[in-house]
Amino acid sequence: MTRFDVLTIGNALVDVLAYADDEFVARTGIERGAMTMVDEARSDEIYAEMGPATEISGGSAANTASGVASFGGRAAYIGRVSDDAFGKVFSHDLHSVGVHFEAPLAVTGSPTGRCLVIVTPDAERTLCTFLGAGAELDESYIDEAVVASSAVTYLEGYVWDPPAAKEAVRRAAAIAHGADRRVALTLSDPFCVERHREEFLELIERDVDILFANENEITMLYEVDTFDEALHRVRGHCAVAALTRGAHGSVIVAGDDVHVIDAHPVDVIDTTGAGDLYAAGFLYGLTHGYELATCGRLASLGAAEVISHLGARPAEVLAELARPVLGG
Amino acid sequence: MTRFDVLTIGNALVDVLAYADDEFVARTGIERGAMTMVDEARSDEIYAEMGPATEISGGSAANTASGVASFGGRAAYIGRVSDDAFGKVFSHDLHSVGVHFEAPLAVTGSPTGRCLVIVTPDAERTLCTFLGAGAELDESYIDEAVVASSAVTYLEGYVWDPPAAKEAVRRAAAIAHGADRRVALTLSDPFCVERHREEFLELIERDVDILFANENEITMLYEVDTFDEALHRVRGHCAVAALTRGAHGSVIVAGDDVHVIDAHPVDVIDTTGAGDLYAAGFLYGLTHGYELATCGRLASLGAAEVISHLGARPAEVLAELARPVLGG
Repeated sequence: MTRFDVLTIGNALVDVLAYADDEFVARTGIERGAMTMVDEARSDEIYAEMGPATEISGGSAANTASGVASFGGRAAYIGRVSDDAFGKVFSHDLHSVGVHFEAPLAVTGSPTGRCLVIVTPDAERTLCTFLGAGAELDESYIDEAVVASSAVTYLEGYVWDPPAAKEAVRRAAAIAHGADRRVALTLSDPFCVERHREEFLELIERDVDILFANENEITMLYEVDTFDEALHRVRGHCAVAALTRGAHGSVIVAGDDVHVIDAHPVDVIDTTGAGDLYAAGFLYGLTHGYELATCGRLASLGAAEVISHLGARPAEVLAELARPVLGG
Repeated sequence: MTRFDVLTIGNALVDVLAYADDEFVARTGIERGAMTMVDEARSDEIYAEMGPATEISGGSAANTASGVASFGGRAAYIGRVSDDAFGKVFSHDLHSVGVHFEAPLAVTGSPTGRCLVIVTPDAERTLCTFLGAGAELDESYIDEAVVASSAVTYLEGYVWDPPAAKEAVRRAAAIAHGADRRVALTLSDPFCVERHREEFLELIERDVDILFANENEITMLYEVDTFDEALHRVRGHCAVAALTRGAHGSVIVAGDDVHVIDAHPVDVIDTTGAGDLYAAGFLYGLTHGYELATCGRLASLGAAEVISHLGARPAEVLAELARPVLGG
């Protein structure tokens, strides 16, 4: 018996969201549409230039855990925050949707991490992350009993950036496989793929049962020019891969089984969290015995809900929205 | 010459917004649709029961200052926050729209105040306020030079709750009139009116040049049954009164001059800040020499913008939205 459907592990962050024009993004010198890592001083500098902001819990894997819970699944999260206002907000927001999150708030080390999210008029987001306490996640945070009793352990590619955290998630993957559970990975971001390509390729080969990536990430991983080439490469590389293509929907490939899933139509307000909620819907479906095409439809539904408003976590109860898909 | 068009003084708060159903509100025992004052422990208790939340700077008078700045006016704010994460967020959000806010972050006393905002499906909001540092505002915060050089000093009725703060705003009103400037007051909330009716009646008689109130507040003030009775009472009591009636628009009365202004049509998402942004538009217009009907149209525009999204401060630049009204 499993205690959790999905355990997610990642960099814990509070998002600080503000609207800005393209000129502002250009002026900061940050790569538009990507995630750039900065130190506390640079984060403070950019924040000082930003307009009025909204603070809302984020962190890619935490968004996914929150999404799984919203679909009605049993979700757990491992990540590191400090015993400060943002850490308490982060913890509250996970607990309030029923996500198991038991790591004590850290009283030493860096403050809780934050991600400055600059939303431009085209609804694209440019992320600027100060990892803070998140970067100090280490093996002591990996609760063996929780990992061993989760049907899927989902890892965020971003965790490869802080060295101690990477070791922690490798340990989690080993525990999961030792308990005959599955391991999922999201590539997180094309620049993240560029930084860790060799390690990701090896990890997928050896440890990943379910891979999530968008078109930019998967072509960057295999250093190919077209989505179709990447599709054929991943097919022989990973048991299940779910590849997203924004408004063009997604493709799920599992050996000979291929599904092409439409995006759920929606007015896009802010794309933050789209991939995270896609993964949430997919993993909820997978751990509840639905076939891959249904998993894909749940995934598209999760992504559509989260991009229809500001913030990277569901604003509506996804279990309710999923009823027409599941025929309940 | 004035340095500022509008100085606002009020309880500085960070809003913690979450959606909930009517049953949740009933269970907390808090008065639906009103503002209830609670201590830190009770605030923490209700927060623990609340769903995932969004943190965004609020505080009625601070919202108004932010709105005046967004219309392109010169705005200043006086209020008290602590040197903690929420205090820094509050300060950042005012500075980022160009509001003058110079009080140092307090290093002693209570943490920065917070207002739990529970938004029910009808877009009504139920407020639960822990004043925190805001309640410790005292006369030392009243910068005489700033008050004397502001065309209008705008006071929040809520400030009558903490005793030291009330003395501070009375002092500000005296400085403003001594410098031949105008004083505005918002009644803030019907329960606030009930708590301070006699003081408000005397204050309006002696010190208030411009009064803002909604229908519930103004009928509560004069203890009358109908809006029309309240209208006739206030007419002889205050030089200018702007009385709001939600979707039914507003009525502006200044001696023999009466204007009935339509509400600006909008899809209501969250009514938090409607009165604050109404006041912002009105005072921007008044301090820029527009006639009362135009002030009312700017006021309706400000209110409409802020209720079209979650949060009590403008998400769009009001100066841009105001162009069609001002023919610019």
